[in-house]
Amino acid sequence: MSDITVLGEQKCFEGLQGVYSHASAACGVDMRFALFQPPQALDGEKVPVVTYLSGLTCTEENVTVKAAAQRWAAELGLLLVCPDTSPRGPEVADDEAYDVGTGAGFSVDATEPPWSRHYRMYSYVSEDLAGTVADNFPADTARQGIFGHSMGGHGALTLHLRNPEVYRSVSAFAPIAAPMQCPWGEKALTAYLGADREAWRDYDTCELVRRRPSQAKLFIDQGAADDFLETQLKPDLLAEACEAAGQHFELRLQPGYDHSYFFIQTFMEDHLRHHAGVLGA
Amino acid sequence: MSDITVLGEQKCFEGLQGVYSHASAACGVDMRFALFQPPQALDGEKVPVVTYLSGLTCTEENVTVKAAAQRWAAELGLLLVCPDTSPRGPEVADDEAYDVGTGAGFSVDATEPPWSRHYRMYSYVSEDLAGTVADNFPADTARQGIFGHSMGGHGALTLHLRNPEVYRSVSAFAPIAAPMQCPWGEKALTAYLGADREAWRDYDTCELVRRRPSQAKLFIDQGAADDFLETQLKPDLLAEACEAAGQHFELRLQPGYDHSYFFIQTFMEDHLRHHAGVLGA
Repeated sequence: MSDITVLGEQKCFEGLQGVYSHASAACGVDMRFALFQPPQALDGEKVPVVTYLSGLTCTEENVTVKAAAQRWAAELGLLLVCPDTSPRGPEVADDEAYDVGTGAGFSVDATEPPWSRHYRMYSYVSEDLAGTVADNFPADTARQGIFGHSMGGHGALTLHLRNPEVYRSVSAFAPIAAPMQCPWGEKALTAYLGADREAWRDYDTCELVRRRPSQAKLFIDQGAADDFLETQLKPDLLAEACEAAGQHFELRLQPGYDHSYFFIQTFMEDHLRHHAGVLGA
Repeated sequence: MSDITVLGEQKCFEGLQGVYSHASAACGVDMRFALFQPPQALDGEKVPVVTYLSGLTCTEENVTVKAAAQRWAAELGLLLVCPDTSPRGPEVADDEAYDVGTGAGFSVDATEPPWSRHYRMYSYVSEDLAGTVADNFPADTARQGIFGHSMGGHGALTLHLRNPEVYRSVSAFAPIAAPMQCPWGEKALTAYLGADREAWRDYDTCELVRRRPSQAKLFIDQGAADDFLETQLKPDLLAEACEAAGQHFELRLQPGYDHSYFFIQTFMEDHLRHHAGVLGA
């Protein structure tokens, strides 16, 4: 049984929005996460789990206060788990840039110093966090999904493709769809994994789709007015990879929407309904 | 025609969430406000206007990112106007406390120095802001409502009771229901209006209800687990005043809910449906 510390719990849509911390073996520090229990869970029912991975600079708080997800999670009976985006603390390596170090974990297990000591977000999310949630909350771990935004969309897609039997449903808002082919991805993967691009392929959605497509549908919303669309996100490269590999996907280009939580809030219902549909919630 | 400066506009639920600034004659400084135009307004239709007044320490941003109001405003076709809670700037008097000065305008026109120079939020909201919205957006000014949270709930109730023909619908989340009888109210009203309590009566919901009840229903949600319920908010005093004066009201005590935007988010749909129903949206 893994212990958690309750940092706060607040009622919301007849469910319970909490913030917790726990010791992470992977990261070697305490990590924080937000978790929403729908009313069904408070009534003792084991419910499906959907994990949301946030974008660059975020903590667990942004999605919790800005995404308007609780209403749909409450209605659909989904446990919503929202981890931080990196390890944090005085002993954790950092960089002045916003796109590597604190707030920029990129869902990878770093192998290069100084990052390799604590930046192990792939293992953190898939092992430590998942285990802690299963131990402490009424989670039906046979029914799990994953989604995320931007950097976290990249994380969700790669975690699904590497663990399709665990994360059975997957979606993304404006994901970094081809991190090996954009400045954010190249910078972070070089820092965390070293200059040998061969090591990057396990963390690139396009590469993973080519190697082993999943049976699930990759459900993706992308704002057409997103400032990062052409330089960093590149969903067209993912669409090409999916078509070539026979990966089922749905990419919706949403006219006029940008990269913000106003965009995410608008389509949150569709995403949670997608997960609930796949997971039988 | 009053000029506005666009500080930002972002698409949300097929509407447009903007942040604007404009010169306020009442406050003598530039003021910021957030405004959501539902898709019906973007299509050229004049739509009802609902103004939301925020609580202590807030700016126009809190409700805009945390209240999940846009979905319902979009569906119901309501223009949602969210002003700041006080004048701000180097020339504006302030106090180190959070409950007087910046972020604590209390919807009054101050008469006491140093506040009287700029703290004129009653006139700002009812005149300057209303005029600017009417001049610059597709607002059906014959159909207006007002609501708010905590200090802003107090503001909404008093603005309605003093202008029932303008603000035809009214509601509040956890309002300061009897400012003359709680520490927050007594401190602010003393600072802004002076020690003579007679001058306070125009800004106290209970006093206004006794003097001249309105024909509208005061629709109020209050979290039962709100830390400020008994010391500061005191909806029971308002209920007594309404019953004595024949003022129609509905006070819902919501078990387990606190004073936060998780509470507001939960009941936002009910409030906007209330306004839409009264205003015929």
